[in-house]
Amino acid sequence: MSDYIAKQIQLTSRPAGMPSQENFSCVEVELEPPAAGQALVKNLYMSVDPYMRGRMREDGVYAQSYGLNSALWGGAVGEVIESNAEGLEAGDIVLNGAAWQDKFVADASTLDKLEPFDRDQLSLYIGTLGMPGLTAYVGLFKYGEPKEGETVFVSAASGAVGANVCQIAKLKGCRVIGSVGNDAKAQWLLGECGVDAVINYKTCGNLTDALAAAAPDGIDVYFENVGGDHLQAALAVMNPFGRIAACGMIASYNNSKPAPGPNNLMLIVGKKVRINGFIVSDHGDMREQFLVDMIGWIKEGKVKSRETVLDGLDNSVEAFLNLFSGKNFGKMVVKI
Amino acid sequence: MSDYIAKQIQLTSRPAGMPSQENFSCVEVELEPPAAGQALVKNLYMSVDPYMRGRMREDGVYAQSYGLNSALWGGAVGEVIESNAEGLEAGDIVLNGAAWQDKFVADASTLDKLEPFDRDQLSLYIGTLGMPGLTAYVGLFKYGEPKEGETVFVSAASGAVGANVCQIAKLKGCRVIGSVGNDAKAQWLLGECGVDAVINYKTCGNLTDALAAAAPDGIDVYFENVGGDHLQAALAVMNPFGRIAACGMIASYNNSKPAPGPNNLMLIVGKKVRINGFIVSDHGDMREQFLVDMIGWIKEGKVKSRETVLDGLDNSVEAFLNLFSGKNFGKMVVKI
Repeated sequence: MSDYIAKQIQLTSRPAGMPSQENFSCVEVELEPPAAGQALVKNLYMSVDPYMRGRMREDGVYAQSYGLNSALWGGAVGEVIESNAEGLEAGDIVLNGAAWQDKFVADASTLDKLEPFDRDQLSLYIGTLGMPGLTAYVGLFKYGEPKEGETVFVSAASGAVGANVCQIAKLKGCRVIGSVGNDAKAQWLLGECGVDAVINYKTCGNLTDALAAAAPDGIDVYFENVGGDHLQAALAVMNPFGRIAACGMIASYNNSKPAPGPNNLMLIVGKKVRINGFIVSDHGDMREQFLVDMIGWIKEGKVKSRETVLDGLDNSVEAFLNLFSGKNFGKMVVKI
Repeated sequence: MSDYIAKQIQLTSRPAGMPSQENFSCVEVELEPPAAGQALVKNLYMSVDPYMRGRMREDGVYAQSYGLNSALWGGAVGEVIESNAEGLEAGDIVLNGAAWQDKFVADASTLDKLEPFDRDQLSLYIGTLGMPGLTAYVGLFKYGEPKEGETVFVSAASGAVGANVCQIAKLKGCRVIGSVGNDAKAQWLLGECGVDAVINYKTCGNLTDALAAAAPDGIDVYFENVGGDHLQAALAVMNPFGRIAACGMIASYNNSKPAPGPNNLMLIVGKKVRINGFIVSDHGDMREQFLVDMIGWIKEGKVKSRETVLDGLDNSVEAFLNLFSGKNFGKMVVKI
């Protein structure tokens, strides 16, 4: 197979509710050899993330919409195969925005050359050391502002973002409560990550009651990944001057029509709550310190990463779809 | 009538939905003469405010609950009739927390002696120069953080708080859009207060469409007094990095069961919105500067106050009830 024949996943129709394989196709394209300043990259690992669902809508409020019948994109780690650019050579490992493609040609300026701290853990650069990890770090520290001894509630707590939030909140001396959708995830958070209490939202009955029981002193910070009932429970159990870092609301991503919000929003006033929506791409200024801190914590064994790895670009759509049924355990990665 | 016979309004039962006269009674009590450090005060003006509805619930999340069959309380301006306290003498004007009573005896420490800038405008101290004015000032400047040229949307815009928000936002060089429930209020805001556009939410049809039309460049700050559809419209039309100062949500205060929230809360994330709930009593540190600024603006004619005055303590319940049907125009005051 020529080095210049690449496969890419394209969106062929916009999903109305939950996406399915029918919305995507795998297309073979022939690349041009890299022009001056460009490189040919073979992707090794690509990320699938819940936010990508937003890009599949025509009116991309969250982020720029994906076009139909052209390559999707997202975070990936690849290896340079052929370079026509200064400062890049074959074998270099590059973080790039060209997920959903096994190979691609791009300007060197769009490739972030990594000095990996461990060549055997490259996928961390799209997980704990990548966008999801930085999201956890920015959301918790900049917007959650947890103080030692406070209680932090994290939804989707074993996910790519949530698991990092839980662990770095513990490092700050907080009591941490997570919510997850199955007991294996709960056990991992309790046993491996030092989380203090975990709620299985599918089996706990009334979520507000379960959270109140798990947080007898209330919660001070809520890291919002889910929305809906989770937000309602968090507001109900929140202490005065609580902070909500609003990272995402996955419960609503596949709604074909909008669902109403929590019925207790007035508590925002009464409890003097602060909510900050944020998107990690606005916070590149925190990345350098984040990498120093996070690599340190990983090396010391203080932050653990769990990944679900599917093999092959052909499985990337399945990997993406699995995010919405909770089949991923930790960071969902596609090995290409 | 003895100076020591006082009338007070008591809550006799907790309203389930919209309160009515039946939930209240007017009771005559005999006061003790002021002990050392106390004064006897005759109230001149008392405030009725939407937040008082929250105090009528048994579980006062917003603020301490009113007890049954004892005097209600709230902001009032009175005159000292008899003093047994150093630093206070008959004729002094005092801001106090003993509304809903025509006379009362209290410790001098609970009385805030005023040096009124105009003896003929004492009621301003429970309006534009009092809690509602400070609420506007804190919410807009500390939490809304409007920049010159930005667009500010204010709900309940002709009310005691909203009318001040509108006018001080104009003083900061903002474009201001208000929403009100009748055309007379709209005309006053447009004609007297310099507001740029006003929406009558009862007649405008779809509120989001009306707001989008009034704010072709989007809104940057939303001063939230209403909740429900207003919050949904504000989120829909908000610009990235918009700020919401959440002062109250009057649309929900009389719900006998909780109503669902807006169906577009995910926009908080996508638009990177910041929401701050706040209660003015946490911000006494801003009062001194507020009074300097606001008295200056009033004297210069830059901030106008409109009041609806009902006469007599016997009409205080009606004054309060009128807040929820929008019968007040500007600040609702009871002259005692």
